[in-house]
Amino acid sequence: MAYIRLDSQAFFHNLTAIQNTLSHTPHPPKLALVLKDNAYGHGLQQIAPLAKSFGIESVFVKNYEEAISIAQLFDTITALYGEIPPNAPSNIWASIPSLQALQSCATAHKNAHQMRHIELKVNIGMHRNGIAINELDRALSLLENSRHIRLAGVLGHNGYGDNDNESFFTAIQAFSDVREKVRKWCEARNYPMPRFHSLSTSGALRLGLHNARSDDLGDVVRIGIGAYGYHTSELPLHIALKPIASLYAQKISSLHLKKGDRIGYGGVSVVEKDGVFSTYDVGYGDGLFRVGAEQSLCCASGEQILPVMSMDCFSCQSQREEICVFDDVSAWARAFHTIPYMILTHLSPALKRVVV
Amino acid sequence: MAYIRLDSQAFFHNLTAIQNTLSHTPHPPKLALVLKDNAYGHGLQQIAPLAKSFGIESVFVKNYEEAISIAQLFDTITALYGEIPPNAPSNIWASIPSLQALQSCATAHKNAHQMRHIELKVNIGMHRNGIAINELDRALSLLENSRHIRLAGVLGHNGYGDNDNESFFTAIQAFSDVREKVRKWCEARNYPMPRFHSLSTSGALRLGLHNARSDDLGDVVRIGIGAYGYHTSELPLHIALKPIASLYAQKISSLHLKKGDRIGYGGVSVVEKDGVFSTYDVGYGDGLFRVGAEQSLCCASGEQILPVMSMDCFSCQSQREEICVFDDVSAWARAFHTIPYMILTHLSPALKRVVV
Repeated sequence: MAYIRLDSQAFFHNLTAIQNTLSHTPHPPKLALVLKDNAYGHGLQQIAPLAKSFGIESVFVKNYEEAISIAQLFDTITALYGEIPPNAPSNIWASIPSLQALQSCATAHKNAHQMRHIELKVNIGMHRNGIAINELDRALSLLENSRHIRLAGVLGHNGYGDNDNESFFTAIQAFSDVREKVRKWCEARNYPMPRFHSLSTSGALRLGLHNARSDDLGDVVRIGIGAYGYHTSELPLHIALKPIASLYAQKISSLHLKKGDRIGYGGVSVVEKDGVFSTYDVGYGDGLFRVGAEQSLCCASGEQILPVMSMDCFSCQSQREEICVFDDVSAWARAFHTIPYMILTHLSPALKRVVV
Repeated sequence: MAYIRLDSQAFFHNLTAIQNTLSHTPHPPKLALVLKDNAYGHGLQQIAPLAKSFGIESVFVKNYEEAISIAQLFDTITALYGEIPPNAPSNIWASIPSLQALQSCATAHKNAHQMRHIELKVNIGMHRNGIAINELDRALSLLENSRHIRLAGVLGHNGYGDNDNESFFTAIQAFSDVREKVRKWCEARNYPMPRFHSLSTSGALRLGLHNARSDDLGDVVRIGIGAYGYHTSELPLHIALKPIASLYAQKISSLHLKKGDRIGYGGVSVVEKDGVFSTYDVGYGDGLFRVGAEQSLCCASGEQILPVMSMDCFSCQSQREEICVFDDVSAWARAFHTIPYMILTHLSPALKRVVV
C-alpha cells in the first residue's frame, strides 16, 4: 500500500534553521507552527506530536475540527477559519476576520462559562480577510463591552513576503500602526496585552536576516511551508531547508511488453523497446496530479512516470517492489505550473503516513 | 462552512438513463457502481446509501478500507487494489492483478474459516494491471488447487472506451477469448461460473447503443463517471447526464476596495473599479485547483474567482453570504487541461457533504 514517509529529522532541521536565523534579532519571536489543511497535506496527526516534541507551544489550524483533534498538545491553537462553539476547550482560540464575526462571536459566548480568547485579523494590504484598519476603533469598542471574549492576539497577513517589492514594507508599516494603536488602547484600559503577528516563513526570514526592528517580527512568527522544507520566494534564502515528505508506492503487477505496445488510457505511452513494465499503487485519486503527455516526471530513482496516469496507479519501466514517487515535490510543482503547497495539500488523507 | 451539495435526483437520473440505454440489448447487464476514491471525491458515505436505494447490488471500491466502511450495504463489494484480510466479511471480494497476488491470496486464506471470492483481472490490451492472457492457464490451475478461494469474477479493463479507434474492439475481442476459455474450463470441472465484465460507462453506452452481442457487454458493467454526471468520450453521447456535485462556500469578510487596490498573494488581482469584494471559505487546500492569472474561472452565478486563490479562501466581487463555486466542473477541467475526474477526486474528504 502506498504511503507517505515523514522525515522527523528533516522537520527538526528546518525548525532549527529558521529559529537560528531569528535568534540574531534583538528579541527573537517564538516560532508558531501552521498545521492547517492537514499540516499542508503531510498529516496533522503525525506532524502535531513532532511539533510538540520540538517545543512548539502555539499552532494555527484551519478550523475547529482540526483544532479539537489536537487540543491536548498545545498551549494555544488558533482556528484560522470558521466559528468556535462556546463549550470548546479554552486553549482553542478563534481568529476573527470581520466586525460581523466579532459580533457573532460575542453573542455566541454571552452565556458561556468560560472566556473565549480571540485573535483579531486586520487587513494590512492583502485585501483579503480581516477588518479594515478604519474599523479597528469599532472592533476595540465592541471588545471592551464583551466580558466573555478576550483579545489575545492581533494578526495581519503580509501577502508580499515572497516578492521583492515595496508592498512588503508597506504592509509591515501598516501592521506597525495597528500594533501601536492597540497597545495604547490596552495600556489606557489596563487590558492584558495581546500578542502581535503578521509574518510567515518568507517574511520572517527576510526580516530576520536584515536585523529588523524586533517589533516588526512580532511576538510570534507563523511558520508554514518552511517547516515542511520548501521555499517559494523570489528572494534568495540563506538557509537550506529539507523537504520532509516522500511518497512511496508498491508494485501491483508487471508485464513483459514489446516495442510498439501501448500503455494506459487511450494508449498514450508507446513502448520503445521490449522490456518489463510495472504498475504502482498510487494515482491522481490519491491527490497526485495526473501526469499527461505534456509532463515529463520521474520517480526519485529516475524511472519516467508514463502518461497517462490512472486514478489509482501509474506505470513505469521498473520491476522494483517499492518505488519512491517523489522525495521533493518541486519538479511536480514546476511541471504543473503551480507551487509546492498545492501539490502537498492535495495529498489524500487516506494515504498512510509513516514517521521515521 | 463550505460544503458539497449532492443532488440525489440527478444521480438517480444518470443511473436510470444508463440503465435504459442498456435495456435495449438482448440480455441487459446489471449496473455495478464504481465508488472508489471516496466515490470519485463525492463522498463514499453519502453516495453508497443512494446507490443502495436505487437497487445497486454490486460495487467497486479502491481498497479494503473503503470496502469495510460500506460492507453492510451491498451484496458484493470488490476492492480493486490491495489485499483483503482472511477474516474480512465474505461479501468483500478481492481483485487479483497478478499471479503473484493470486498465490499470495491463496496462501493468506489457506487456514481461513470461510471462502474468499476473488475477481481475476486480465490484461486485455491496456498493458497496465492484470495477468497476461498467456498466464491464464497457470492462474486457473492455481485456483483449482486452492479450496479457500473461489473465482467469482473475471474482469478486464477496456481503456479505449473513450476513443474512436480499433483498439476498443480489439480489447473487446481479447476479453471475449478470455471469457470463452474460462467458461470451458468451468464447464469441464463443474466449477461455478464467474461473472465477466470489462466495460465502464463509455464502453457500455457505446456497445449498448450499437446493439452489441450481449456477451460483449458482460454480466455487469462498471459505471463510474457517468453516474456522477460526466462524460469524457471523444464520441457523441446520446443521453443527457447531470453533474450531481455542487460546491458552496460561505462569505468570510467583505472590504470596500478602490480602483488600483491589489488583492491576494503578490497582489496579482488589481481592482478596476471601486466596489465591495469578499472572501469565501474554500481554497486549493480544500482540493480545488489554484486559480492563477492563467485561468479565468467564474462562480456559478457569474462572479470571477480572482487570482491568485489562497489555500483556504478566494476573493471575488460579491456580497452574497453564500456562493456556488461550481455546479459542473467541466470548466475547471478545461482551465487546468485535465479531466473532470481529477477535479472531483481531489475534493477534500473534510468538506461537508449534504445530500438533497
